[in-house]
Amino acid sequence: MGTRPTREAYRVWRQATTRWADDDVYGHMNNARYFELIDTAVNAHLAEATGVDIRTLPAVGVVAEVSCRYFREVGYPDPIDLGLAVERIGTSSIVYRIGIFQGPGDEAAAEGRFVHVYVDNVDREQGRTSTPVPDVIRAVVEPLVVET
Amino acid sequence: MGTRPTREAYRVWRQATTRWADDDVYGHMNNARYFELIDTAVNAHLAEATGVDIRTLPAVGVVAEVSCRYFREVGYPDPIDLGLAVERIGTSSIVYRIGIFQGPGDEAAAEGRFVHVYVDNVDREQGRTSTPVPDVIRAVVEPLVVET
Amino acid sequence: MGTRPTREAYRVWRQATTRWADDDVYGHMNNARYFELIDTAVNAHLAEATGVDIRTLPAVGVVAEVSCRYFREVGYPDPIDLGLAVERIGTSSIVYRIGIFQGPGDEAAAEGRFVHVYVDNVDREQGRTSTPVPDVIRAVVEPLVVET
Amino acid sequence: MGTRPTREAYRVWRQATTRWADDDVYGHMNNARYFELIDTAVNAHLAEATGVDIRTLPAVGVVAEVSCRYFREVGYPDPIDLGLAVERIGTSSIVYRIGIFQGPGDEAAAEGRFVHVYVDNVDREQGRTSTPVPDVIRAVVEPLVVET
Repeated sequence: MGTRPTREAYRVWRQATTRWADDDVYGHMNNARYFELIDTAVNAHLAEATGVDIRTLPAVGVVAEVSCRYFREVGYPDPIDLGLAVERIGTSSIVYRIGIFQGPGDEAAAEGRFVHVYVDNVDREQGRTSTPVPDVIRAVVEPLVVET
Repeated sequence: MGTRPTREAYRVWRQATTRWADDDVYGHMNNARYFELIDTAVNAHLAEATGVDIRTLPAVGVVAEVSCRYFREVGYPDPIDLGLAVERIGTSSIVYRIGIFQGPGDEAAAEGRFVHVYVDNVDREQGRTSTPVPDVIRAVVEPLVVET
Repeated sequence: MGTRPTREAYRVWRQATTRWADDDVYGHMNNARYFELIDTAVNAHLAEATGVDIRTLPAVGVVAEVSCRYFREVGYPDPIDLGLAVERIGTSSIVYRIGIFQGPGDEAAAEGRFVHVYVDNVDREQGRTSTPVPDVIRAVVEPLVVET
Repeated sequence: MGTRPTREAYRVWRQATTRWADDDVYGHMNNARYFELIDTAVNAHLAEATGVDIRTLPAVGVVAEVSCRYFREVGYPDPIDLGLAVERIGTSSIVYRIGIFQGPGDEAAAEGRFVHVYVDNVDREQGRTSTPVPDVIRAVVEPLVVET
């Protein structure tokens, strides 16, 4: 399963509150719910850092692939800290790593990997011809690139 | 992104209905929602094939890692066909592949990969010491193994 | 809490599959999840009965008020039967009742009430000036009206 | 639809972050998602104010009825302020009102109503014989009662 990343592996941080319904019958956050937090961390950072409504740009990022490795439980009620880093910026794609932390520890409870591929906004289906990452997006993700 | 799997890659099938709230602002199923379907396909097959309440076995499968590659959009309102196959059975883990199809085509719209690690049911946290896959589970997943 | 409605109180039926993540830590469907099923039952019936994409009509129904009374647990893994009836059709609003059943019993496990108010589709916020229910919608909901 | 409550109608406040997946195809929070916030506001306040894990008390509150009136849109990305008040405390039930606000305005964007009925924790189904509200719960909700 590889090593557990620590807080220093990430460049910017966001916080999310948890919800009672996040926990499934086992009393911890259901694996699908992590992706709601991952998705939000990426999109919210892009929106804030660019200052534009990214949903209205000529090219938008569609999710081509996501994954998450779970190291230890998180769940309601404490908030979640989400660390964001960029593993790779390609011509038309960006690969993010999102560290998920809850509580004081330095080791991530989970790490998500999230691949955006940019496509034309009027025809934004997965599998469509990709288009270059918009400059306004590229400018705000370059500072997040980490050596891996 | 690799090749798109076709229906023949899977061994058993389940169907799931879609929900209005599955679609996000882009008008297609949000990436997190796919994992609700993936998770359900695996757990429902185990429950039905074993005939036992898998949540009460001495060892339960906790999700160690999941991923999904998205090839083309799915979403509300049509139902989803979920094909299930097993990539690998280890001493204490099982790796599933779940093909996601909507409509008549033979190529998957998405493929999920889902890793269960078995742990003691009274202390079922990710990261805990793993325990062997229960025989009742092993018996029903062996017929799903495919060459990869 | 009033009386529990029975199956004869509804005019059309839909079925929805349940998901592992529908159940919360108490092992039954979380109260918020019922509204995903209620919402879908209404919108799917309108779409099928009218044969049009209701999201593109000049007027669309926005949810003004919803409620649900819970009589007995439902949850993963069995499917849910949803019965639909109309309590009232006004100039610009429709009040639906949605019975939620799981398993063979005749009494509803829950009953939702769902109020759509029609507003202009280019400016579809709750609280906006309402507009008459489109004729194509009115035609398919009138047969669902029940005496109350 | 009645009047829109203002901030002074509530006694305690919580804040929740929004998620990209909260918004449906209409670009605003899906009606079911409000109930995830309502549910969490009630349960989190009870847990914090009592200082105990309310899920392990001899009697637990099961949701008997919920409703929400929607006055104006909310949605991703801004956080939500949730105001909490108690409308009525009965022998075995508590009726909460939860005001939902986003942004600087004084008028609620929505108001939820949430009815907990207390039942024995070993047999916690809706419809079971109710049991008195535990004293530890009663003590922390009495200060939230408002005249209506």
